[in-house]
Amino acid sequence: MNGAETVLRTLVASGVDVCFANPGTSEMQFVAALDEVHGMRGVLGLFEGVVTGAADGYGRMAGRPAAALLHLGPGLGNGLANLHNARRASTPVVVVVGDHAVDHLKFDPPLASDIDAVAGTVSAWVRRAHVATDLGRDTAAAVAASMNAPGHVATLIVPADLGWSEARNVGQPVPATTAPVVAEVTVSAIAKILQSGEPCTLLLGGGGTRRRALLAAQRIAAATGAQLLCETFPARLERGGSLPAVERLGYFAEQAGAQLSGVRHLVLAGARSPVAFFAYPGKPGSLVPPECEQHVLATDHEDVTEALEHLADLVWTDTPLPPSGPRVSAPTGPLNAQSMAAAIGATLPDGAIVVDEANTSGLFLPAATASAPEHDWLTLTGGAIGQGLPVATGAAVACPDRPVLCLESDGSAMYTISALWTQAREGLDVTTVILDNGSYAILNIELARTGTTTPGPRAQEMLSLAPPHLDFVSLAVGMGVPASRALTADELVAELRLAQAEPGPHLIHAVL
Amino acid sequence: MNGAETVLRTLVASGVDVCFANPGTSEMQFVAALDEVHGMRGVLGLFEGVVTGAADGYGRMAGRPAAALLHLGPGLGNGLANLHNARRASTPVVVVVGDHAVDHLKFDPPLASDIDAVAGTVSAWVRRAHVATDLGRDTAAAVAASMNAPGHVATLIVPADLGWSEARNVGQPVPATTAPVVAEVTVSAIAKILQSGEPCTLLLGGGGTRRRALLAAQRIAAATGAQLLCETFPARLERGGSLPAVERLGYFAEQAGAQLSGVRHLVLAGARSPVAFFAYPGKPGSLVPPECEQHVLATDHEDVTEALEHLADLVWTDTPLPPSGPRVSAPTGPLNAQSMAAAIGATLPDGAIVVDEANTSGLFLPAATASAPEHDWLTLTGGAIGQGLPVATGAAVACPDRPVLCLESDGSAMYTISALWTQAREGLDVTTVILDNGSYAILNIELARTGTTTPGPRAQEMLSLAPPHLDFVSLAVGMGVPASRALTADELVAELRLAQAEPGPHLIHAVL
Repeated sequence: MNGAETVLRTLVASGVDVCFANPGTSEMQFVAALDEVHGMRGVLGLFEGVVTGAADGYGRMAGRPAAALLHLGPGLGNGLANLHNARRASTPVVVVVGDHAVDHLKFDPPLASDIDAVAGTVSAWVRRAHVATDLGRDTAAAVAASMNAPGHVATLIVPADLGWSEARNVGQPVPATTAPVVAEVTVSAIAKILQSGEPCTLLLGGGGTRRRALLAAQRIAAATGAQLLCETFPARLERGGSLPAVERLGYFAEQAGAQLSGVRHLVLAGARSPVAFFAYPGKPGSLVPPECEQHVLATDHEDVTEALEHLADLVWTDTPLPPSGPRVSAPTGPLNAQSMAAAIGATLPDGAIVVDEANTSGLFLPAATASAPEHDWLTLTGGAIGQGLPVATGAAVACPDRPVLCLESDGSAMYTISALWTQAREGLDVTTVILDNGSYAILNIELARTGTTTPGPRAQEMLSLAPPHLDFVSLAVGMGVPASRALTADELVAELRLAQAEPGPHLIHAVL
Repeated sequence: MNGAETVLRTLVASGVDVCFANPGTSEMQFVAALDEVHGMRGVLGLFEGVVTGAADGYGRMAGRPAAALLHLGPGLGNGLANLHNARRASTPVVVVVGDHAVDHLKFDPPLASDIDAVAGTVSAWVRRAHVATDLGRDTAAAVAASMNAPGHVATLIVPADLGWSEARNVGQPVPATTAPVVAEVTVSAIAKILQSGEPCTLLLGGGGTRRRALLAAQRIAAATGAQLLCETFPARLERGGSLPAVERLGYFAEQAGAQLSGVRHLVLAGARSPVAFFAYPGKPGSLVPPECEQHVLATDHEDVTEALEHLADLVWTDTPLPPSGPRVSAPTGPLNAQSMAAAIGATLPDGAIVVDEANTSGLFLPAATASAPEHDWLTLTGGAIGQGLPVATGAAVACPDRPVLCLESDGSAMYTISALWTQAREGLDVTTVILDNGSYAILNIELARTGTTTPGPRAQEMLSLAPPHLDFVSLAVGMGVPASRALTADELVAELRLAQAEPGPHLIHAVL
């Protein structure tokens, strides 16, 4: 058994059985080993940003890592942006980067570069393997490092000669560290604050946006009158059905300011203290009002679910819970951001996984989908665009029995568009809706917010996606994904229903 | 005048008048300033790998840098692979990366990451700007650092608040260091070796693959009988017409071994000592035969052109130069790697810039094009695939009066396919020929070379690009580039001629 096979066998023994890959010469041993290690499924991406984004989507839904197999420093570079998003999502991901053979590095061959430095910027754990017979131990340590609460990117760099050397020692699974339980005294103190009668907000983040935590948070809010919010970009927010409708903190400081206006106590449950995504001239970076006191119920490294349930048990007294609202109706007429959102809300199938990179086009989505059947909502955690299509791909691999809906802005779609090919190859049940407004619309807003209220023609050209107008139907068909165009709300509703009725990937180019 | 405008004005004053860009919020001041600084042309890329690859192509052809404007760490990550290629090509590139405002970094906002660490892996010079009033000086220093011989990637990190702060001090151009002249004693010693009668090879690289150097090298070879070779992946090889036909050192060690077999003296002229691209079990990493002695005429940091001309003057005695061969005829019949190469050789227009990411499909190209009219040949210097379409884009911006031909493998094309959109938007005269063999063909070879001679079905699947088969005509049309498909050699010849006759971009999907 060579080193590459040892790595794959150790991954499988540690519960990692999917490997998203864009391999090169230094990873050929891993490719060859796929035929020896039958517990491991290899999924090819045509670009590394697809591979790492898919591993992020997989990890968010499976709760355990996929491996992402990348080729040397440039491959890692291509995958870096979506590893950044995975890092911000606290997703467990095991990155395996092939390097040149140890003896070959001294020649500084053309593809050599400082892999360790690049890996360090996104990984909580980086190890360069030095001895083939240690590869099993190294790999098991990587899986554990990725699974240490709350979840991390762990990167193992494997020189090619270790992959082809004899290495029989398959690694034993290593237990990961679990999230520590929050102290009783902390929970009781927060209970008193929430019961003080002063205006309180409970801000959920990390593990606090999952079913059990949400049900506890709902009881807390009902019993204490606290406002319930969650972080702006949750990694995975469970919602719909009988789950509470939790508003997300606004992206723009003005929205967040309105939500937090008059709040006296902000209780953080798995969320970090809210900050503006970007700084603007003369505006504060923290979104917490000056008169508001912050209290940490649980950090994202602690057991936020247990803390919320404990807190709910302290404060709840059979207070009635608010009922779910009625489901929105299917819209008709012109297609715009509002009717698009209604079309999604009216057609979202039970158990759907929604991947949301809708950006400015998504303004009306939260309200329109709150009363849809139960679903998961995955967002752009790290702000590095080009996440949606790959995350949807990985989520579909993790949950083959659930429909995936990817809401994708036109500009963002172009960063990792080849994810569509992987969806077609793997026959994944992903419906992608491209939300086409012909521009980097968010940047038009941001340009004004940074002080340029009347941009000149050359500035406008840098934010416009047309001409030439991107034809996403052609792009999808070119990669083997059946596609259609929706120009009205009625068409979008009909095409969503068609896509849901048929297995495999679909793309709808929605012109807003 | 704010800091962003100061940066742009300093760039223009330093001779940098093209900015390839994929900006985000932290770069909005730069976008706004484009309307104030009319000497600067902004060219939008829909993905940062397009932006940095275009800057590489531009720098190779213009001999001076373009700016590449990138958004924070993830944007730099997306652009890293083509900066790696630019670094290996010694291309002058000025990278400007926007960062969060200084006061905002303490909040660790979602998009924050270690930009400096990533930039350091590809840049000979990295500076983080600290004071708005120093931005002019910083920018001028960046341009000089990029132009220091032989050419480098220089990265300036600009926090957003510096961009929007008052900063009147436009920087004065700073002179770059030129390549030192090689000592007389070195040149004379090499002359003696070449005249020794022992088998000698002159290996050209760096600046040694340009017209003046090549003409000198041709005289040296004619006078001394030395074999003339150039490095495997030259940044810019001038050839065709009356220029000497210089064979490139083979990519595979076996090819290089045959070329260097029996050579007693290897004289390096701007080239590094040749090494294998990758290591293989039990094979040497250096391509220099054990019995061969190496001599450095000029490193790539020295004035190789002057050294070659000096050397030629020492050894040349009116020896007749070899004549150019006849131009190949237009092929007919089935389309394969050989007839494709002939079609290129028969139709290549005068003054063309050929961007070669043909990989395995390009085997017959050098011979078939050696006697075409004079042209430039740009190759994959750093081995990070996804370079061709962006480099072609940048070369076309640098040389609007010259036709650009991009020979692009199917697998590699998918990394940076959105370069086609930029070509359409800018109306660039680029003809892209996609060489479709439906696989990562090079990896099938590499798999065998690393020891797997009979790959299993799962390994084969990881190296195959079908199903689904990529339809590059659909992809190109989706991005506004007229496209056609060639199934025979006759069709390819006809479509190449049509594309050349019409301005603007075209794509030909050549099914091999």
